[in-house]
Amino acid sequence: MRTIIARFNIQPGKETEAEEAMKTMAAAVEANETGALAYIFLRNRKVPLEVAVFEMYADGDAFAAHGASAHMAAFRPNFGPLFDPASVKIDSLDRVAGFTR
Amino acid sequence: MRTIIARFNIQPGKETEAEEAMKTMAAAVEANETGALAYIFLRNRKVPLEVAVFEMYADGDAFAAHGASAHMAAFRPNFGPLFDPASVKIDSLDRVAGFTR
Repeated sequence: MRTIIARFNIQPGKETEAEEAMKTMAAAVEANETGALAYIFLRNRKVPLEVAVFEMYADGDAFAAHGASAHMAAFRPNFGPLFDPASVKIDSLDRVAGFTR
Repeated sequence: MRTIIARFNIQPGKETEAEEAMKTMAAAVEANETGALAYIFLRNRKVPLEVAVFEMYADGDAFAAHGASAHMAAFRPNFGPLFDPASVKIDSLDRVAGFTR
């Protein structure tokens, strides 16, 4: 199991395009990555430009496949026009306990 | 749907007790809160004292029930001896897109 929380900021004024890009990306992950167990784009209620992405992969191979995917290659150029590249923070996490259902 | 990412730090030297407390809490949430759809304690790989909790509730009532639960009342006193109360950050989030499976 690999779990990631990625964070970055939407460029001010680009909220609509950014949401469209996130929806397209999430749909592509769901359709093409059987090893992706969760992939959720979220916006902070108090600071709506802040995005968090909660990602769970079955194993390291599934995580590597995500990074090498065609949809990831298509999503990356959004950093700049839609998302602030300087704001990106990626935390790799180990599960202690818990569940999804 | 209510989604929360809570963050706080384990008190140095209290890792073992903190992990036990998190396991007990996660099991109680799973057993007693039908409205909790995800509840996962995670530790940062690079900064292992950092904990993140990814929480999804079916609705506001389920989130309120979590806060009012007996197991939450039992978990709270761990802030101080096991977890640093000054480190707590709680983000309330709105889902843009994504899935769990």
